[in-house]
Amino acid sequence: MAQETEVREEEMQREYRNVGKPVTRIEGAGKVTGETIYADDMQLPRMLHAKVLGSPYAHARIKSIDGSAARQHPGVEAVFTPADLPEYKKNFSNRRGVIFPDEEVLFYGQPVAAVLASDPHVAEEALALIKVEYEALPPVVDPITAMEESSPLVRSPLGDVDRSEERGHVTVGVEQEEAEGKPSNIASQMNFKRGDVEAGFEQADVVVEHTWRSAVVHQSYIEPHSTVADYDASGELSVWTSTQAPFYIRDELSQTLGLPENKIRVTATEVGGGFGGKIYLQELMVAALAMAVRRPVKYIMSRKEDMLAATPAPQAVIDLKTSMTRDGKLTALKSRVVYDSGAFPGAPMLPGCLLVGGYYKCENLDIQGYEVLTNKVSVGALRAPGAHNVTFAIESHMDMMARELGLDPIEVRLKNAVEEGDPLPSGQPYPRIGLKQCLEAIAESEVWGRRNRERGTGNRGVGLAVGGWLGGLQPASAIVCLNSDGTINVTVGSADITGTNTSFAQITAEVLNVPLEMVNVTTGDTRTAPYAGMSAGSKTTYTVGRAVKLAAEDARQQMLEIAAKRFEAAPKELEMADGVVRLNGSDEKTLTFQRLGRLSTNFAAPFPAVVGRGAITTRKMAPGFTAQAAEVEVDTDTGEVTVLGFAVAQDAGFAINPLSVEGQMQGGASQGLGIALSEEMMYDSEGRLLNGNLLDYRMPTTRDLPPIEAIIVEVPSEEGPYGARIVGEPSIVAGAAAVGNAIADAIGVHLTDAPFTPERVLRALGKL
Amino acid sequence: MAQETEVREEEMQREYRNVGKPVTRIEGAGKVTGETIYADDMQLPRMLHAKVLGSPYAHARIKSIDGSAARQHPGVEAVFTPADLPEYKKNFSNRRGVIFPDEEVLFYGQPVAAVLASDPHVAEEALALIKVEYEALPPVVDPITAMEESSPLVRSPLGDVDRSEERGHVTVGVEQEEAEGKPSNIASQMNFKRGDVEAGFEQADVVVEHTWRSAVVHQSYIEPHSTVADYDASGELSVWTSTQAPFYIRDELSQTLGLPENKIRVTATEVGGGFGGKIYLQELMVAALAMAVRRPVKYIMSRKEDMLAATPAPQAVIDLKTSMTRDGKLTALKSRVVYDSGAFPGAPMLPGCLLVGGYYKCENLDIQGYEVLTNKVSVGALRAPGAHNVTFAIESHMDMMARELGLDPIEVRLKNAVEEGDPLPSGQPYPRIGLKQCLEAIAESEVWGRRNRERGTGNRGVGLAVGGWLGGLQPASAIVCLNSDGTINVTVGSADITGTNTSFAQITAEVLNVPLEMVNVTTGDTRTAPYAGMSAGSKTTYTVGRAVKLAAEDARQQMLEIAAKRFEAAPKELEMADGVVRLNGSDEKTLTFQRLGRLSTNFAAPFPAVVGRGAITTRKMAPGFTAQAAEVEVDTDTGEVTVLGFAVAQDAGFAINPLSVEGQMQGGASQGLGIALSEEMMYDSEGRLLNGNLLDYRMPTTRDLPPIEAIIVEVPSEEGPYGARIVGEPSIVAGAAAVGNAIADAIGVHLTDAPFTPERVLRALGKL
Repeated sequence: MAQETEVREEEMQREYRNVGKPVTRIEGAGKVTGETIYADDMQLPRMLHAKVLGSPYAHARIKSIDGSAARQHPGVEAVFTPADLPEYKKNFSNRRGVIFPDEEVLFYGQPVAAVLASDPHVAEEALALIKVEYEALPPVVDPITAMEESSPLVRSPLGDVDRSEERGHVTVGVEQEEAEGKPSNIASQMNFKRGDVEAGFEQADVVVEHTWRSAVVHQSYIEPHSTVADYDASGELSVWTSTQAPFYIRDELSQTLGLPENKIRVTATEVGGGFGGKIYLQELMVAALAMAVRRPVKYIMSRKEDMLAATPAPQAVIDLKTSMTRDGKLTALKSRVVYDSGAFPGAPMLPGCLLVGGYYKCENLDIQGYEVLTNKVSVGALRAPGAHNVTFAIESHMDMMARELGLDPIEVRLKNAVEEGDPLPSGQPYPRIGLKQCLEAIAESEVWGRRNRERGTGNRGVGLAVGGWLGGLQPASAIVCLNSDGTINVTVGSADITGTNTSFAQITAEVLNVPLEMVNVTTGDTRTAPYAGMSAGSKTTYTVGRAVKLAAEDARQQMLEIAAKRFEAAPKELEMADGVVRLNGSDEKTLTFQRLGRLSTNFAAPFPAVVGRGAITTRKMAPGFTAQAAEVEVDTDTGEVTVLGFAVAQDAGFAINPLSVEGQMQGGASQGLGIALSEEMMYDSEGRLLNGNLLDYRMPTTRDLPPIEAIIVEVPSEEGPYGARIVGEPSIVAGAAAVGNAIADAIGVHLTDAPFTPERVLRALGKL
Repeated sequence: MAQETEVREEEMQREYRNVGKPVTRIEGAGKVTGETIYADDMQLPRMLHAKVLGSPYAHARIKSIDGSAARQHPGVEAVFTPADLPEYKKNFSNRRGVIFPDEEVLFYGQPVAAVLASDPHVAEEALALIKVEYEALPPVVDPITAMEESSPLVRSPLGDVDRSEERGHVTVGVEQEEAEGKPSNIASQMNFKRGDVEAGFEQADVVVEHTWRSAVVHQSYIEPHSTVADYDASGELSVWTSTQAPFYIRDELSQTLGLPENKIRVTATEVGGGFGGKIYLQELMVAALAMAVRRPVKYIMSRKEDMLAATPAPQAVIDLKTSMTRDGKLTALKSRVVYDSGAFPGAPMLPGCLLVGGYYKCENLDIQGYEVLTNKVSVGALRAPGAHNVTFAIESHMDMMARELGLDPIEVRLKNAVEEGDPLPSGQPYPRIGLKQCLEAIAESEVWGRRNRERGTGNRGVGLAVGGWLGGLQPASAIVCLNSDGTINVTVGSADITGTNTSFAQITAEVLNVPLEMVNVTTGDTRTAPYAGMSAGSKTTYTVGRAVKLAAEDARQQMLEIAAKRFEAAPKELEMADGVVRLNGSDEKTLTFQRLGRLSTNFAAPFPAVVGRGAITTRKMAPGFTAQAAEVEVDTDTGEVTVLGFAVAQDAGFAINPLSVEGQMQGGASQGLGIALSEEMMYDSEGRLLNGNLLDYRMPTTRDLPPIEAIIVEVPSEEGPYGARIVGEPSIVAGAAAVGNAIADAIGVHLTDAPFTPERVLRALGKL
């Protein structure tokens, strides 16, 4: 159960019967019993299966592709080389604008051709029969090398870059400078400057400067990317896909394939894990092939294909220099933030630059961001994209400076932590936030309580770090209908990847003052659902939840008006509770929801059906902060780091479903521990992925993870429903930094490269 | 193309760009190319196929059922006898309240057990292994015999009868008397009385009295009843079924299976023909079996199963006595209207009694209706249920009386035809109607023009008849959304069985003043769609169309308000045309729909998503009348009747899509000709169906049908969108009567039994 802070007042809680209460997820039973229908479970008449041929080179020129032998293979229905593709609006500057390259292959595993067969194994077999002649080109694998003037170019120059997908994760009114002038591997850059950093360093008593590296990590959802598409005789395209962003896919397909949006139906099938990585990827290819063959096409990535050619999270190299006065005041921060974007733009340089200087008040800032291209797979979002990379840097520095000055790491953070009104590096002021409250809460955690007890004993240590995320902003809408039997249906357009539909049921039940079971929530497809933005940027409850609340209030009003007419009273004289509308204080003048349902649906019913509608927009962020503490034990002989305990304090604004919020906090923390300890996609010097499977790419299992203490902090947001703010992403942000600080607490050395593998630990200890 | 009458003014038409224009159906291409996904095309993981064992007796007691041998059959997964069924709220008084009888079998082919197997052929094979021991009971097959006091009882007594399904087809505030007291085979009865019929007969110059019989006819949709159901671990029931009434099914399943409506999702799959027969039938069984085995279950009726055990339209026996003065005034009408309901109540006695005395002003009425049970399959609706049976009687009488008095059949009808304000037999006054205008229009038809030319030559004749239908009433709602690219999505809850979604697209495009292609319409399922009544009773355009219009107007207003804010103007200063909103007269202050879409969906967009909502109810009927003329040739040697020409004038109120209205008129007329000429389900004395297939049950094919002249009359309804009124049903009503009158015109004899088979013609001619 959630621990509560003083921020949520006892009084306030008692008013609520549904929101703020822990409930299990409405779609959960289907998932745990295996009954949920995923995209791969879909069968359509005449359906074909696609398999894709990936490039064996990280950089090459295709000289010729010959699909004729594959076409002859028994069971093969079609082979698509670049030349066979139907027309679409190509944009080689964006990963999602390319089905197959016309000529230049940019990363190892990049799809260059596809086979359609009635059986997926036949399709796979036939891939070997496609003859591709490549001219190998020099690959550029390391981003720092790529930035050098002397570096070969990763690719032909970029044209117009569309950054709409990244904006879904973090929506701030700041633009980066796209590459211009002389061709280079720098796709874009940006600079935030404030005050005078050199003067700031001068004033300080301690200056720390290091370079921090983090690895390419994969979202590693259980379900790989999965899509089915069909294009029918009416010119209507239907796409069923495991996505967080059905409306975004509709919009993109519309623009790329030249179909109006009203002729496209995207159904977000149940998502078997997304974490930011399931926005839009293979849908264009599957749709285009279905349109070409006029048959349904299914494409389910194998694990290997997904690791080779989906969009993992980027590695980053952060040069950071910070300084502090003796009394713990941060005086200057200078950073070069380099994100390796892979072969296409799309790296989270913007949030990285905002966050590296965004946690603490600092008068002197100079943050220079680079988004650098390499011949690796292009990157995508992974829960607070880019945040963990820079947080690892700044939060290690905070500890290093505190240690040098002999200050308490929590005190030093509290002294500098941003509050409402403080500027982001971009100058935008923060709205109401709860960073300080998270720090105060983590100070009370059991894990942090062991800080001084453990230090130095048996190579154990305890460390902490903060993290945060700004969140996305997008309009949203919802419909709330009263059924004939008095139960309630809610329809939204947002994919439910984190239990948001359960929270929407709670919100609706709260507004209508009924037990939760009376409400069900459905994610419609893009033809039947009211619009919602992508389920990314942690914004779903914050935005769609508000629309649901409005729609429920609208339905409530309609129901009160029906009852008021029947009672010849005013709506405000009525009360609504437990499925009954009642004239204040009357035992006789009552109408059940069921009766209201019948009165508005029966044959010749006297009232119209009750259809509540809510539509909102918001331009105000509700950033979410976290403070996390780790207790580790380091085996100085083997280099192995064991996390013994972990605590996450996070500001949820208001936890509509504390169980779900805790789940998010624990899930994100687990991923943060994976980033800290073991997850790393490894490439050789030719840009070939070395560990494209889940045996060699090491995610932590439950056996690797400690119990995770979740402490919900509630500093209400200004616009979210019941004060809820963004929740999904912050929990991943601070893990690497907290574990790194705990290791330093244990062995006295900060590791500058994550993950903290045994090899790196031993190297840090001077044992390798 | 539709011929127009003076009722729709030329001026009015010119105002419209979308409504009133003939357009092809938006879902048509999928149907004609075979790409449409019907229920039978669905595949779900782990799905089982059901086959049903029918009773070989029309009346029997089940002594024992042994499914054990069938259960052992390889491939069989489950066998359900009555004892194996899960619990449900049985109601043996309604067909839809019984999955299998506990004991008493009531009609030949009644399902008594089911097999589930992974292959439908295996399931069918295993049926033969179910051992049922029956005790045969005396069957009662003829309804008139059944009414006799001495008749054996058809069944154990009825309890509470639910008539909600019938009310969907015709919604008038009149109740029938349910059977009470001594058990008999009369399920219900009713009486309408006005004036003094005996005095009326006295005043008249001619009195005609006959008995009119019509046959059991089958809806004979191309697609038989088809259902898939699944029940998941969350306790949610999903049903995909070929139905006209998804919300009705939801409500019924909720009550019968004890599930709340918010846990039931009914998807109306594309209906391959309904005609009133696809409301609710096997859905309960399929859902119950799916719940029992916790796997998806599919049940597709074979043609034979459908003809044996679906719900055809009833036979009726109408005793009618009418009288007229020399100058053509109807003075009295007395009728006994007997509908054979089969083994369960549900016959359309109520509309029959209303219509037999509902076409003409008549001061003296005595109409006695009986709904009689027999051991035959229970009946359902077929397009204007019950109307053709009584119309055959009254419209034959009008001709007979006119002929005896030497009056013109059109004149005599015009003299007596009901108008706005005239009472129905129940006393309710008619709203605005167009019966007279239909008569005037048919007088101008080509077919009627041949009336005097053809008479007597070569056994050719021309006859006419009127018909009408009152229609159903139910609340409706709709949602109209603006997409990001400026196109429009409409969501409704009504199954589209007649092209109604196309009309809704026209209505929306009209309101928003855009080309039709910019609008698409989707029927959602009962979880995502706003409520709509069943697509029956011809009410879909009349009710849902009005909701769509309101929703489009709401969306329009929201769009104008966004533009008004951008232009700093008032919404009323703006105009909207061709996807652009413009400040009156300005070339600069314009906003495209696409821009409006982006402004309400983009990241950090300044405006909420545009979601128009419309919800209506109506308690005012919009009855639809028709006048139809037939030209026939009778082969007096073989008795064969050939229809050489047919004309239908019908009041559509306002034909939103004249192409679709004509299609309805022609389709209904074709079915009317089938009823007139050849369609008849034949039972032997043991109640066994003799012609349960489409070779022996003879529907007219295109080779049997003449060209059908469609004349659209437009007397606007008071509440329908743009004046539209009910359209789907009236066209079937007058065919038998018109052909009968034409035969009489040709050979001088009225046939009193339909269909007019060669045998009956020869008998009437005294040749048999």
